[in-house]
This record gives sequence, structure tokens and C-alpha cells, in this order.
Amino acid sequence: MSIRVLEIIFFFYFASHIPITLFIDLQALLPGHVYPQPLKALLKWYADEFKDPMMLDPPEWFKSFILCEALFQTPFFPIAAYAFLKGSCKWIRTPAIIYSTHVSTTLVPILAHILLHHFPAEPQPGPHSLQERWLLVSIYAPYLLVPVLLLLTMLLSNTYSPYSEPARSPVTAKKNN
Amino acid sequence: MSIRVLEIIFFFYFASHIPITLFIDLQALLPGHVYPQPLKALLKWYADEFKDPMMLDPPEWFKSFILCEALFQTPFFPIAAYAFLKGSCKWIRTPAIIYSTHVSTTLVPILAHILLHHFPAEPQPGPHSLQERWLLVSIYAPYLLVPVLLLLTMLLSNTYSPYSEPARSPVTAKKNN
Repeated sequence: MSIRVLEIIFFFYFASHIPITLFIDLQALLPGHVYPQPLKALLKWYADEFKDPMMLDPPEWFKSFILCEALFQTPFFPIAAYAFLKGSCKWIRTPAIIYSTHVSTTLVPILAHILLHHFPAEPQPGPHSLQERWLLVSIYAPYLLVPVLLLLTMLLSNTYSPYSEPARSPVTAKKNN
Repeated sequence: MSIRVLEIIFFFYFASHIPITLFIDLQALLPGHVYPQPLKALLKWYADEFKDPMMLDPPEWFKSFILCEALFQTPFFPIAAYAFLKGSCKWIRTPAIIYSTHVSTTLVPILAHILLHHFPAEPQPGPHSLQERWLLVSIYAPYLLVPVLLLLTMLLSNTYSPYSEPARSPVTAKKNN
């Protein structure tokens, strides 16, 4: 896959994450009166339809991830969206490695919880059948797959290698001097 | 603090992590018959003394972190211990950034769980008073603090900067040519 195609995927991922975080994810953290009724109804519809109890009745460990999303990830979204829209911005490499490792790590316990936890029926029903569990996994999966793809791109692509910058190669450095 | 002092701290951290993982942490994941009685008794004593129910009765999300420790972290421990004992090994920078971000991230939900979860009395009692909660936090805290220190060292120290390698600076490159 061309690096430009990957960059455009990363741009859409980060750009779309801004409204998703502000309008949906942060509802799990902030008091109810902050959000207008239609947005609360949207989250309630999603939680019922996809049997996701984590967003409406979040355990403490899940809430701590939403706090990280608010504090560390959200300020990074516009910066990363800009860098990948522009393309070949080497300075995004280390921040993108940190972001992608952080987010992939948060998805491990979330997916384990969805697949293996015995959810109580109250107050918000969770997935029970394998089909319900895999449906919910498929909602969260992009937030594991895209960060892993981002991490591999930062690690393996020549475009983002810290050692392939033309101005720093011995030949170009010689010319520049 | 001198970079050599930090490297020695990181060496002891990674070297000591190998027996802790193999003899203690993996007990939360592997079947009981794998471990000899004295090691099981040691974990039981720790869990009772420090009111840590996560190791003897681990929730699914916590178990998924132990699985990551077994699969991804344990093979890294001897490599990192070697790199920091030797010192100034630039090639450890990116793996150390990934390791430290991953482990710091796992500590966020663990500390939130310790500080805020309402633990049931059965089957293994958890911390209830603030004092019990902070005592348990202090056991886990080094696995947040040392990785954060490692991340900051990799990001900020000249020794580990990918752009400060003598052979790649324009001046040295000129000499080498």
C-alpha cells in the first residue's frame, strides 16, 4: 500500500476521532447536564442496540481510559490530522508511536472484557451470546487496528525513518557544507 | 541526575522484573499446579497482607495485561537489562518508548481500580479504607514511575536522541568521507 494511502487513512481516523470523542466518548465521564438531549439519546440508542454497558455504566478502569482520551489524546488529534494530511512529517513519528502504543494497550483489556466478562443484566445489559460479543468487538476493533497499522508504519516506513532524512545523510551533508 | 545513574536504575528495574514476572505475576494467568507450594503461599501471603484481590481473583481486563506481560514484555526484559547495563545503546530508544508507553498505560486502569472500585468481601478481600488503597497503590506505583522516567529519558536525553549520533552529524560525516 502506498504511504500516501496510509496517511489519508490516518488523517480520516484522527479527524473523525475529534467529534466522536467530544460528542460521544466524553459522555461516559462528564455529568449528564453537559450534553443536549439528542446526543444523550444517541448514546442510549447505541448502548441498547449494540449491548455496550461500558459507556452508560462505566467501570472505574474504563473511565480512567476516557480520562486519558480527554487529557492526552484529544489535543493530539488535530495535530496528527494536520501532519498526515500534509504528509511526510517526520516530527510526528515519536508522538505517533506513543499514541498508537497507548491506544492499542487500552484496547486489550476492553476487548478481553467484551469477550470474557460475565455481564450482569442490570442496570445496562451487556453482550451475552458470542454473536453479541463479536458485534461489540467489531465496533471497538478499528481503535486497535488503525493504531497498530500506524505503529507499524512509523516503525517500518522509510518515509518516517529518523535515519533516512536527506539533509542528514553523509552525502547531502557534504553537499550542504 | 547523570544518565549513567538512570541507566543503572533501568538495568535493576528490568533485571528484577524477570523473576517477579516468572515467579509471581504469571501465577494470575497459569493453572495452579504449575507452581510449587512455597511460591503459591508467597502470593497468598502478599494478597492477604496488602489486600490485593487482583492477583488471586483477577478480572478479565487485568488478566489480559498479565498476558501482555508474558508475551511482549518478558522477552524484552533481558534485552533492555543488557542495553542499559552496557549504556548509551541508541537502538533501545524506540523499543523502550513502546515498552514504557505500554506499561504506563496499563497502570492507569489498575491504579483507578485500586483507588475507586468498591471491592466485594469475597472471595479475596480488597482494599476499603483510604490507607489500604494507598498502600496497594504504593506497591504498583514503581511500575508507573520507572516507565515514565524511562520514557522521559528516551525523549529528552541527548545520549538517546536519534539526531545526536556523532557519525551522522554533518561535521563527522565530512571527516568520514
